[in-house]
Amino acid sequence: MGLLVVGSIALDSVETPFDKTDNALGGSSTYISLSASYFSGPVYLVGVVGDDFQEEHIELLEDHNINLEGLQKIEGGRTFRWGGKYHYDLNVRDTLFTDLGVFEKFDPVIPEKLRKCSFVVLGNIQPDLQTKVLDQIVKPKFVVCDTMNLWIENQKEDLLKVLKRVNVLIINDSEARLLSQEPNLIKAAHKIREMGPQYLIIKKGEHGALLFGEEGTFSAPAYPMENIYDPTGAGDSFAGGFTGYLLKTGDVTFENLKRAVVYGSALASFCVEKFSTKGLEDLSYFAIHDRFMEFHNLSMFDTDE
Amino acid sequence: MGLLVVGSIALDSVETPFDKTDNALGGSSTYISLSASYFSGPVYLVGVVGDDFQEEHIELLEDHNINLEGLQKIEGGRTFRWGGKYHYDLNVRDTLFTDLGVFEKFDPVIPEKLRKCSFVVLGNIQPDLQTKVLDQIVKPKFVVCDTMNLWIENQKEDLLKVLKRVNVLIINDSEARLLSQEPNLIKAAHKIREMGPQYLIIKKGEHGALLFGEEGTFSAPAYPMENIYDPTGAGDSFAGGFTGYLLKTGDVTFENLKRAVVYGSALASFCVEKFSTKGLEDLSYFAIHDRFMEFHNLSMFDTDE
Repeated sequence: MGLLVVGSIALDSVETPFDKTDNALGGSSTYISLSASYFSGPVYLVGVVGDDFQEEHIELLEDHNINLEGLQKIEGGRTFRWGGKYHYDLNVRDTLFTDLGVFEKFDPVIPEKLRKCSFVVLGNIQPDLQTKVLDQIVKPKFVVCDTMNLWIENQKEDLLKVLKRVNVLIINDSEARLLSQEPNLIKAAHKIREMGPQYLIIKKGEHGALLFGEEGTFSAPAYPMENIYDPTGAGDSFAGGFTGYLLKTGDVTFENLKRAVVYGSALASFCVEKFSTKGLEDLSYFAIHDRFMEFHNLSMFDTDE
Repeated sequence: MGLLVVGSIALDSVETPFDKTDNALGGSSTYISLSASYFSGPVYLVGVVGDDFQEEHIELLEDHNINLEGLQKIEGGRTFRWGGKYHYDLNVRDTLFTDLGVFEKFDPVIPEKLRKCSFVVLGNIQPDLQTKVLDQIVKPKFVVCDTMNLWIENQKEDLLKVLKRVNVLIINDSEARLLSQEPNLIKAAHKIREMGPQYLIIKKGEHGALLFGEEGTFSAPAYPMENIYDPTGAGDSFAGGFTGYLLKTGDVTFENLKRAVVYGSALASFCVEKFSTKGLEDLSYFAIHDRFMEFHNLSMFDTDE
């Protein structure tokens, strides 16, 4: 009955070599929800904001048919704020400040009606909160999970508990190496899948993404980008596009997961073309499908001469 | 009328975290020729060795039907020797010693009969020697060229002259950035193709390879390798497999170049599975084709649900 997205909602102040912005809409659940909104199913966002969260952001989310019944607004509280600066090499960024605000005491209570969502994306939040979310869901069909180095390093026990309950873990290459303590990504993938996830996706930024499952391995190319304006949210957009497509098709076979990885990659490529969430605001399913086909053309070859 | 390969022939002393070897057969033209030998056409190797070059190496090359009419043997001279040590991260290596020997005064004279070769691979040697080779060839159909950071940094003028005369330049990502002075690989590719090469292949090691042409861009996956024993010769094996397949098919369309990139990647993957040239010695066209199909399975997805 739809896709439940739980994660952070933030106001981001981001500086890249090309531009800067203050208090722009951000946060993992924002990027995930916007990306997933272009596929057919209903998207339910669960998160927390303060009373400083602008009405225009609410409207943007609602304009994308994102259901906000699970959005908690704390009167007198401040929305989570994050400031970051990217270097000329956009793979390197410094966090300038983190002001957790209402996110510090975020208690992800899932409204009764949303507990029957068939697809769940656990955005990058503390592992014990991810567990708390899963405990409330009634027989989820498919759970997709993100995490980060901070939790791998500091809350590994809690994270390992979550991993036993998810269908897909989506992380980047350095996180995969950190989690598995194994430099070779192929060996790392084996180790991580033994921790629980049925499928593992390793995002490699400008080098594409790898999907690992019992059925085999799939290598998705990266979109050849000449200009990346703001990498913020790329990973979340990937997760949103990936899960949105699965929800739309209702098909979680390995063959369909491959396509979902490419749709995820497509959404991530749109995301980084503009600042903040701008790259995700005015898309259409047709534009996304066109890019999906570009990925196909990029990596296809006939085996016959 | 066949494939002409010009490059170094060496005796390599290589140490990796897994094993070490002394005075093993090596050199760019050796790896290129062995890789190309599994395809149908005659392969002509042009290079120079000293009288210390072992008969067993000659036999190995001849067993692979590699024509050695262009092999110069300098009496009283010493074969080029190279020593290198790979770190635990196999992408990092130190050159322990370089003893040019007879290679220092290598004059690539192409025997009359070989000047009509339709396919030419210019292995990684000084750009002015590459030019000297091209000057001797009668209307080559297709010229494939390799180079390295040393020549990009120290003999750029000479290199740029060569680039105007080649169909395909094959380099790795760091060489592409160095040559173009552009960190973004897609922009780098545009710049390099403007220097002359009709096609550019950028090898990205464990991240696969990119082919750029007027017709578009092709992204080939990397073979998922759990164990790499010796990376020496991987790039040369790629060039040999790539060109060998083109020679076999006689087809230099973009669609066929894509397949050739995958055959090149297949040969490189065999190369690094064993020490020195061992991974290339006992292959068959069937084994290579099987691996080609594995690359296909790895990257294919249907666009229809």
